[in-house]
Amino acid sequence: MRYPNGIKRHKNTNFAASQSKTQYSNRGMTLEEDINVTNKYYIDTNKAIIYKKPTPIQIVNVHYPKRSAAVITEGYFQAKSTTDFNGLYRGEYMDFEAKETKNKTRFPLANIHEHQFNHMKQISEHGGICFLIIRFTVHHETYLLQADKLFDLLEKRENNQKSIPYETIQQAGYELPLQYPARVDYLPIIDQLYF
Amino acid sequence: MRYPNGIKRHKNTNFAASQSKTQYSNRGMTLEEDINVTNKYYIDTNKAIIYKKPTPIQIVNVHYPKRSAAVITEGYFQAKSTTDFNGLYRGEYMDFEAKETKNKTRFPLANIHEHQFNHMKQISEHGGICFLIIRFTVHHETYLLQADKLFDLLEKRENNQKSIPYETIQQAGYELPLQYPARVDYLPIIDQLYF
Repeated sequence: MRYPNGIKRHKNTNFAASQSKTQYSNRGMTLEEDINVTNKYYIDTNKAIIYKKPTPIQIVNVHYPKRSAAVITEGYFQAKSTTDFNGLYRGEYMDFEAKETKNKTRFPLANIHEHQFNHMKQISEHGGICFLIIRFTVHHETYLLQADKLFDLLEKRENNQKSIPYETIQQAGYELPLQYPARVDYLPIIDQLYF
Repeated sequence: MRYPNGIKRHKNTNFAASQSKTQYSNRGMTLEEDINVTNKYYIDTNKAIIYKKPTPIQIVNVHYPKRSAAVITEGYFQAKSTTDFNGLYRGEYMDFEAKETKNKTRFPLANIHEHQFNHMKQISEHGGICFLIIRFTVHHETYLLQADKLFDLLEKRENNQKSIPYETIQQAGYELPLQYPARVDYLPIIDQLYF
């Protein structure tokens, strides 16, 4: 069994929760890495064609050395106007954002930009499959939350709170198994919910 | 009427062809800029949600100055594994690549990487709407060519030629009007072909 490069272990693995899950959850890859591995597996097995969009970068200066590749010498990270992942599954457009939090009790909404919410609303309205994948790293738990449920939760917030309780995500979402080879195997839940 | 920033005029506009087309074709925006303007118009009018994917960049060094934004000080352009544009239209997944050529008589295939062809094949097989937008800059003409027709043309090539004749693109493709505000108004053709 070969692991992808760049694997990182959690610095802090001495809490009880890490013992209660399968060994897979202890490998400590980021959610994004896990989803990339999963998507590659889906593409390799011809199940779905989902890619992460590259990070948008504003390029200010490029150096062109003789005999070697162009080097970007000044660039800046730009805000994303859409979600991180999109593609095609069983003939349907699919679009989602992945977020992980170290918070034990709440999912903070600050990580999701307003234009990302707007994008997700548009996708839902135009008939796309749209959702969030949320990981609570301390709990070693990963949930799929449909965009429509997210919007419901946002409307029902009291005092316009800037986060959603962990228990609410547990109830409204669907826990995704962490396993091999599809590390965050979200398609079976999508099958149940949309097909 | 306001034009987006970064408008560039052709250096060479003194050929006869430029006189025979509408004024719009003389503004000399690149095909990518034209499509971005078109997509923005489609999003603003709630017709379709299509975005250009950011250019993938391998980030090697980032500098974090105090009190200001992180600066990428070493980065490299990476090969694209997919197409430039994708999104959602009338509930369907849509995916396309845009290419322009200065060649008068042939469309060179060298610009399209093998993994892009593979990606387009996968999208077609999974039921997505997939096509190329090809501009012959000298002729001031822009064509939509469906992916399936592209694959047919590739198979029918003699001697495995590395380009497709201009006349063949004219016959197999659909010319797109250059106009305002949707500068490369490809959705009407998509309506005809797929809905």
